[in-house]
Amino acid sequence: MHMTIFSTEGIPGAAEIRSAHNRIAPFIHRTPVFTSTYLNGLTGASLFFKAENLQKIGAFKIRGATNVVKSLPMDVLAKGLCTHSSGNHAQAVAFAAQQAQVPAYIVMPSNAPDVKKKAVAGYGAEITFCEPTLAAREATAAEIVSRTGATFIHPYDDYRIIAGQGTAAKELLEDTPRLDILLSPVGGGGLLAGTALAAKHFAMGVAVYGCEPLGADDAARSFQEKRLIPSVQPKTIADGLLTSLGERNFGIILDHVQGVLTCSEESIVEALRLIWERMKIVVEPSCAVPLACILEDKIDVKGKHVGIILSGGNVDLGKLPF
Amino acid sequence: MHMTIFSTEGIPGAAEIRSAHNRIAPFIHRTPVFTSTYLNGLTGASLFFKAENLQKIGAFKIRGATNVVKSLPMDVLAKGLCTHSSGNHAQAVAFAAQQAQVPAYIVMPSNAPDVKKKAVAGYGAEITFCEPTLAAREATAAEIVSRTGATFIHPYDDYRIIAGQGTAAKELLEDTPRLDILLSPVGGGGLLAGTALAAKHFAMGVAVYGCEPLGADDAARSFQEKRLIPSVQPKTIADGLLTSLGERNFGIILDHVQGVLTCSEESIVEALRLIWERMKIVVEPSCAVPLACILEDKIDVKGKHVGIILSGGNVDLGKLPF
Repeated sequence: MHMTIFSTEGIPGAAEIRSAHNRIAPFIHRTPVFTSTYLNGLTGASLFFKAENLQKIGAFKIRGATNVVKSLPMDVLAKGLCTHSSGNHAQAVAFAAQQAQVPAYIVMPSNAPDVKKKAVAGYGAEITFCEPTLAAREATAAEIVSRTGATFIHPYDDYRIIAGQGTAAKELLEDTPRLDILLSPVGGGGLLAGTALAAKHFAMGVAVYGCEPLGADDAARSFQEKRLIPSVQPKTIADGLLTSLGERNFGIILDHVQGVLTCSEESIVEALRLIWERMKIVVEPSCAVPLACILEDKIDVKGKHVGIILSGGNVDLGKLPF
Repeated sequence: MHMTIFSTEGIPGAAEIRSAHNRIAPFIHRTPVFTSTYLNGLTGASLFFKAENLQKIGAFKIRGATNVVKSLPMDVLAKGLCTHSSGNHAQAVAFAAQQAQVPAYIVMPSNAPDVKKKAVAGYGAEITFCEPTLAAREATAAEIVSRTGATFIHPYDDYRIIAGQGTAAKELLEDTPRLDILLSPVGGGGLLAGTALAAKHFAMGVAVYGCEPLGADDAARSFQEKRLIPSVQPKTIADGLLTSLGERNFGIILDHVQGVLTCSEESIVEALRLIWERMKIVVEPSCAVPLACILEDKIDVKGKHVGIILSGGNVDLGKLPF
């Protein structure tokens, strides 16, 4: 047992997640759920994979970003959106801004991969490059917000983002037989927190676990010690999970998640290969982390119905681990 | 204009394809149709991709094989199935036999890739290796058939196979708005012939084209000269399309296909990358050939509704061209 040390004020309830879903549904895909006879045989479980790699912009991040954008008053929205990110959240904000026909100001570290820069530019966003440090990113974004009046959208430490990301698990719970276990990768914690809240509000008795590479196990250590331990020099192929847990995310995770599982880099690559080869879909290494934890027997899934969120499919084909 | 020099007796009509579909429907997936805003923008067309990479065994080949198996009398079926193939057809026959709980005897060239051997063995088939020549494969299969009484299932030059493969196009025509153009890769011609017959019987005014790598252009040359020209030392990354056209397939193609388009290896790799990156699905190089022909402007698709059969997703992740 533990005492939650964070405020619970503003944490999304059933109504907020349901509203988020109604708000974003016309603008996102209701992604399909994949199953694999082979993987079921291998694990002894019935696995249900929620394919957010087939989502708009290729990742679940469009859910949270769209929820924020569609919640903003028109006069606020008109001034544009701003974020700092080198990953899927940057694309999500850029795409949502393009759809809403308002400016997007994206701060990216100067060393961001070309493919990410191109994708963000492809959605018509104005990119500002800065030094590759969190301080430089935050300062640059703050300057843009103060100059333009744009709304800053945090990638995960925001209850509207958490409610939006939770809609993926809500759909999965609606589209599958009763689940016993729900697994989500955890980086900043937006997806895991949203998943845990969706399980709490829209299902009964589902055990939710976060899944993390050993090389970026700040969530596992934070969960263990019940205090936020930042990610220091994380190293993993699962580049979507390098971020430190957010405060709001951690509060929800402490209260509603059963545990945080970890796995090795070798298992991530093995799980990634299984998903590509057997399910014939392109997913990011981050997506393979839950299956990798199962392969390492970190959780008993025999005979269970297990939902797994495949978070995205934005991967550099020139840098595959196979 | 041309005179068909092949018999039309036994060519599947609407009734045969419809029967095939009813016969196999309980045992296959009705695969989804994918679209991509990006690829539509790039080509100026509305493209509808039939995702047979998500089919059982990862390829359309299970359709034809299942149609044959489910047509056989029980006493004939009980003696088992035989084929020679190093590719998807071997997996299809092995899987269909496993489902029917009868023996599968698969002749494979000794130099077949390990991944293919493993897949076939994984379905419980008995593999017989032989010298990597067509003569050795045929002789080995003939010996097995004479010894066991197993039914030989040709990979493409068989009207029951053609009717089965045509069900993919039938589904695509049922699941999309009216198509103007339908593109299929062509190797032995089972998929293309079936696609052309499905378009003739289940749609109005759809122009059907075969698509082929320049390095294996026996179908294009045969179509041009209106006589069967075998494939001699073909060379292409699209390893599903190395085979020579079958006789029955060629007869149907001459009568019901508008033309055979060709493309370069560079375009195939470019199209493959686009499908993987933009649609987030794993497809074989053969699947990328129709999109490669579009990228090379071999056909005018502007403003048109274009169906494309993605034939399969069985690819060796250790040998990607990216």
